[in-house]
Amino acid sequence: MHDVFELPAFELDGGAVLDPARLAYKTYGELNGTRTNAVLFPTWFAGDHTSNEWLIGPGKALDPREHFVIVPNLFGNGVSSSPSNTPSPHDAADFPAITIRDNVRAQHRLVTEHFGIERLALVLGCSMGALQTYQWAVSHPGMVERALPFCGAPRTSPHNAVFIESLRATLTLDAAYEGGRYKAQPLAGIRAFARVYAGWGFSQAFYWEETYRQLGFDSLEEFLTGFWEANFIGQDANDLLAMLRTWQDADVSATPGLGGDIERALGSIRAEVLALPAEKDLYFPPEDEVRAARHIPHGRVRPIPGIWGHLTGGGGNPADAAFIGDAVRDLLATPSPAALEPARP
Amino acid sequence: MHDVFELPAFELDGGAVLDPARLAYKTYGELNGTRTNAVLFPTWFAGDHTSNEWLIGPGKALDPREHFVIVPNLFGNGVSSSPSNTPSPHDAADFPAITIRDNVRAQHRLVTEHFGIERLALVLGCSMGALQTYQWAVSHPGMVERALPFCGAPRTSPHNAVFIESLRATLTLDAAYEGGRYKAQPLAGIRAFARVYAGWGFSQAFYWEETYRQLGFDSLEEFLTGFWEANFIGQDANDLLAMLRTWQDADVSATPGLGGDIERALGSIRAEVLALPAEKDLYFPPEDEVRAARHIPHGRVRPIPGIWGHLTGGGGNPADAAFIGDAVRDLLATPSPAALEPARP
Repeated sequence: MHDVFELPAFELDGGAVLDPARLAYKTYGELNGTRTNAVLFPTWFAGDHTSNEWLIGPGKALDPREHFVIVPNLFGNGVSSSPSNTPSPHDAADFPAITIRDNVRAQHRLVTEHFGIERLALVLGCSMGALQTYQWAVSHPGMVERALPFCGAPRTSPHNAVFIESLRATLTLDAAYEGGRYKAQPLAGIRAFARVYAGWGFSQAFYWEETYRQLGFDSLEEFLTGFWEANFIGQDANDLLAMLRTWQDADVSATPGLGGDIERALGSIRAEVLALPAEKDLYFPPEDEVRAARHIPHGRVRPIPGIWGHLTGGGGNPADAAFIGDAVRDLLATPSPAALEPARP
Repeated sequence: MHDVFELPAFELDGGAVLDPARLAYKTYGELNGTRTNAVLFPTWFAGDHTSNEWLIGPGKALDPREHFVIVPNLFGNGVSSSPSNTPSPHDAADFPAITIRDNVRAQHRLVTEHFGIERLALVLGCSMGALQTYQWAVSHPGMVERALPFCGAPRTSPHNAVFIESLRATLTLDAAYEGGRYKAQPLAGIRAFARVYAGWGFSQAFYWEETYRQLGFDSLEEFLTGFWEANFIGQDANDLLAMLRTWQDADVSATPGLGGDIERALGSIRAEVLALPAEKDLYFPPEDEVRAARHIPHGRVRPIPGIWGHLTGGGGNPADAAFIGDAVRDLLATPSPAALEPARP
């Protein structure tokens, strides 16, 4: 179960208007009386609010007895407004481009208008969730006390864009895609898409060491079908493409007023930032966040060691999940920077 | 211009017989009177004998005034026997699987039967050329004095196989492929194939730094079309798939008599081996060759620094080409191991 926040006549960065935009979300715990315990945890590519639950729960790093955790669903994920659930004229292949900033703007309205929250104790997220986390810290420097992006970056690198482009080229190659006006899902295209993704999702060493056996798969081929194809086969093709577009265009320096200047954008962040790149992440490699942190006033980087590559942030490996949980606890115990404007009473 | 060595009734590892198999090759320089100056330099995926010429020439590391360089074309490359040039019943999609060992066996006959060479001063190759180089050293330990594999490995890793699998899934997804019985090349499939390849061919940093500008491309999209698509668009789809299969199955430990034991296979090498992995190669990562060298009696590894990733070995970057040329000179100046059986007179 989840809730939906409706945004009437929501104008996107690209000019199109969703009327309404529907932002699906789920909350965990209760907002305290001083409204100081809110944590925002946006979702990743092709995930939904349930994808984040491995980090939320009694005794976990995000404990609902202590924190009020809001998990907003990424536009395009099939739960929030998406090609698959939006009526004409914005349905299917006519769904408009949505930026990371559009996502953050809608989330900001949910947080402030619906919940009356003026400060977020923490914003965190993995992968596309990390893209949103950085955007939050840039768009609302007076509101984000702490930010913990993991397996992500403040903007999508050109190499990452090439990977995304290869996914798009593969999926749309299926004749059954029919320019996005398919009657049935282009399953062959989605399967090929999953196989392209498979090489990028985990590290070279993960495959060498047959670590997929820990996930219950006895052979490489079983892993490709039972994990990778299964992960995407239930998704809508246009939804996947909409999220890819959001991902590909991500760039905090494109925030209005920053003139495309990445150092200025990062320099404007007031939050205490702890970035967790995964040591062997092939498409959000650690150097992206190491480079970025140099320009963030309170920016630190703590690489996650190991061989799970990008999926380090997925919660599937207990050691990685524990590492991330510990980092969340550490960051929550860190005082927010004095430079952050105090919340208005 | 090139020559062709015909092998009548050539039986492949898989049991099929090519009658004849045609091994295309080109030579540079002259075999000396003692037949001790022969260098064998097999080709890479989707390349041909001209692909290796950046390292061959007067004043270059392989100098035809000093060395007799033989460049055999990989089966499946459209010049040697391939789906595109073999008559029925082995044409097109019915072309049989060919192993790296099949390639080496045919080359061995060219070298010994046609040229009467009993010792190779050097075998070298990049990528699939490196796979052949390692196989030569394992299959003919008494014949290979020195081996210089670059941007390769002694066997295709499971991760590399996933990358290969994604290329195959993408190319064959094009409806125009028609199970390999196409009338015209499946160009959309080949273009998507090229885009998948693009992310793997160079490192993340290569794209960050827009190093493609050194190759004359002004934008990422121009690079994807003008370099990557252009590289594959002239190729035959079945040829590409045949070479992928050869690549995917490569494994020196599968050499008959070695019982699948990789340490034993590597331990049987008598050649002086200098492996040159590229520091940021994404699909033949340096750890593959570092691990392998531990088991090769005269094995050394000299990583090629820089950001060109797998294409470090392509000869397109002057610094990398110079590094590789220097390594070739160093290795040629190294005495061959005493353990190598002397050539019979």
